[in-house]
Amino acid sequence: MMIDKFNTILKELHRKSPLVHNITNYVVMNNTANALLAVGASPVMAHAIEEVEDITSISSSLVVNMGTLSPKWVEAMELAMQRAKELGKPIVFDPVGVGASKYRTETALKLTDSFTPSVIRGNASEIMALAQISNSTKGVDSTADSKNAISAAQALSAKLNNTIVISGAVDYIITNELIDKVTSGSPIMAKVTGMGCTATSIIGACIAVDSDYHNAALCAMEIMGLAANIAEKKSAGPGSFQMNFIDALHQIQTEQ
Amino acid sequence: MMIDKFNTILKELHRKSPLVHNITNYVVMNNTANALLAVGASPVMAHAIEEVEDITSISSSLVVNMGTLSPKWVEAMELAMQRAKELGKPIVFDPVGVGASKYRTETALKLTDSFTPSVIRGNASEIMALAQISNSTKGVDSTADSKNAISAAQALSAKLNNTIVISGAVDYIITNELIDKVTSGSPIMAKVTGMGCTATSIIGACIAVDSDYHNAALCAMEIMGLAANIAEKKSAGPGSFQMNFIDALHQIQTEQ
Amino acid sequence: MMIDKFNTILKELHRKSPLVHNITNYVVMNNTANALLAVGASPVMAHAIEEVEDITSISSSLVVNMGTLSPKWVEAMELAMQRAKELGKPIVFDPVGVGASKYRTETALKLTDSFTPSVIRGNASEIMALAQISNSTKGVDSTADSKNAISAAQALSAKLNNTIVISGAVDYIITNELIDKVTSGSPIMAKVTGMGCTATSIIGACIAVDSDYHNAALCAMEIMGLAANIAEKKSAGPGSFQMNFIDALHQIQTEQ
Repeated sequence: MMIDKFNTILKELHRKSPLVHNITNYVVMNNTANALLAVGASPVMAHAIEEVEDITSISSSLVVNMGTLSPKWVEAMELAMQRAKELGKPIVFDPVGVGASKYRTETALKLTDSFTPSVIRGNASEIMALAQISNSTKGVDSTADSKNAISAAQALSAKLNNTIVISGAVDYIITNELIDKVTSGSPIMAKVTGMGCTATSIIGACIAVDSDYHNAALCAMEIMGLAANIAEKKSAGPGSFQMNFIDALHQIQTEQ
Repeated sequence: MMIDKFNTILKELHRKSPLVHNITNYVVMNNTANALLAVGASPVMAHAIEEVEDITSISSSLVVNMGTLSPKWVEAMELAMQRAKELGKPIVFDPVGVGASKYRTETALKLTDSFTPSVIRGNASEIMALAQISNSTKGVDSTADSKNAISAAQALSAKLNNTIVISGAVDYIITNELIDKVTSGSPIMAKVTGMGCTATSIIGACIAVDSDYHNAALCAMEIMGLAANIAEKKSAGPGSFQMNFIDALHQIQTEQ
Repeated sequence: MMIDKFNTILKELHRKSPLVHNITNYVVMNNTANALLAVGASPVMAHAIEEVEDITSISSSLVVNMGTLSPKWVEAMELAMQRAKELGKPIVFDPVGVGASKYRTETALKLTDSFTPSVIRGNASEIMALAQISNSTKGVDSTADSKNAISAAQALSAKLNNTIVISGAVDYIITNELIDKVTSGSPIMAKVTGMGCTATSIIGACIAVDSDYHNAALCAMEIMGLAANIAEKKSAGPGSFQMNFIDALHQIQTEQ
């Protein structure tokens, strides 16, 4: 049944090519745009407060990633998220590095509380910081095993009534009592910048075509894991992995 | 004769290594800098209003791309374009996503009307939106065939007395009554972010060494198409295509 | 002995995985983050004045690169550098394009004079411009041989009592009377955007684990040269070189 859902989402991505509005960080923009194109979606990157509401209005979903946040960008995120809520469009939020600075923590809590993203994806440290569970964060990389964040994610999901994704060696997709896990993937992913951000964007594509957000997030993580497994076999290191991963996403899309 | 003009431009790029000033979007900066280096030009990315006039002054051409526009950047574009006009330096303008938001449309029209870029390159939807011909835009990707934009491009070219490039499966280079087309290229280009932006930058390199802007734009699109054909044969998907495309540009430059 | 020091630094990078705070330019963020991950460091990119002091405080070193500078970013650089000085954390500074505009020159001189970076890396033109030796700069690429900048670098080093790295076909690492050179590397590096910025970031990683900054900078340039030699053999052009270079960095780290 999982295979059926997986293929249905890939077919819908191909058929609809949903416009996915990304307000994301400078580091990963190129990679996430290419990942979205490879799975069949149509990415648009726009962050000016003068236009984000217009762009969200014509898009099928909104991806908000605070990796290189600053006040103007946060203001744009708020406007876009407000518009998405008004229009009933799904939002995925990536609280990159929450816990690493007071500003990141305050911003992540404010965006989460004000706009209740449909899905939130982070590594274990980030999910624990967002749930305000004490933990040590080290910059933007996790210092904890994803398993340790399950109860934090469950508490968050119960409070927000949404879907929380903890990514790591094992990924957990959590919606209230429901827990799914994805064990595919590759250790080399931790050596490539922005693989988590790419996962968030692909969740953004999947929630654009499947209103069951838990299922959409699960399929997105399965797509990530499958592409990583394909890419790993062809790669001599993190440089070639980054390239082969995009090829693999495209291969999965075209072979569905 | 086309081959002669093509080789002359490649030789001039190699001989002069023109400095090309880019005010462009966050998504493509790395790729377009590498594409410019590969064809023999010397890219400089600078956007602060405190320095754009200085940088334009020492450059041989100016590339303005509004892919991730915001007010400060638009102000910088205006200063740089004004300086380029004063110094008689060629400008290529890429109205990314014009039509997708009121802000993009207003900005594109303002920059076009105020500074009359030497060359404008866009996809069919963008050229039609810029010519204020009714059409449906979907984010930054075209929903129309490039052929449908020919009359819009001709009207624009006649009004502005400049060169308009419509890129797509077939590219059209239009200067008043003169129409050239380029049929080389690869369908995979639509699956790689920023290939249009790369075309715009390479036009920026070519107009820096050939004052016949129609010819320069035509050669730039031929370089794009040839590199795409070379890269396509070696590529397993859009990831490897992006890499092989840069290698192919460099190969074309070194083998001219 | 060089080999020993080199391996010691690689082992320390692997063991400590130091957090390296980067305030750098838009063009190279993805590449430098991947280069830092490949050599074993943990990169964080953050530039908001609201958080840079917090991020510097939890980091082991600070990388400041002014490639796409603007006033808000310069303000953030100042705050982060001030905090790093207070906490005794090493700083590496990359004065990209100093000399190409009045704004760049003023900013580079101000940051250098106010905060005395532990290491400064630039090409020959940049080091001469920073030492206020008359020279012609062309955008962000050097117009001079690295050898011509040795006396400028020595004067700078004597004045600042720090380490100056001139990169080029031959790299010079200069601390007062001490001069080391690195002759490995590849001519193709000049055709890939941001290789100098990558060198600066890897210096940032090495000074995080070795308080002998001259030695750390020398090892960083040796790592660059060695990775370039490995990558060059596998590459068909600058596109594949960029990818193979990251793979090679990772290979050097894992095989130390």
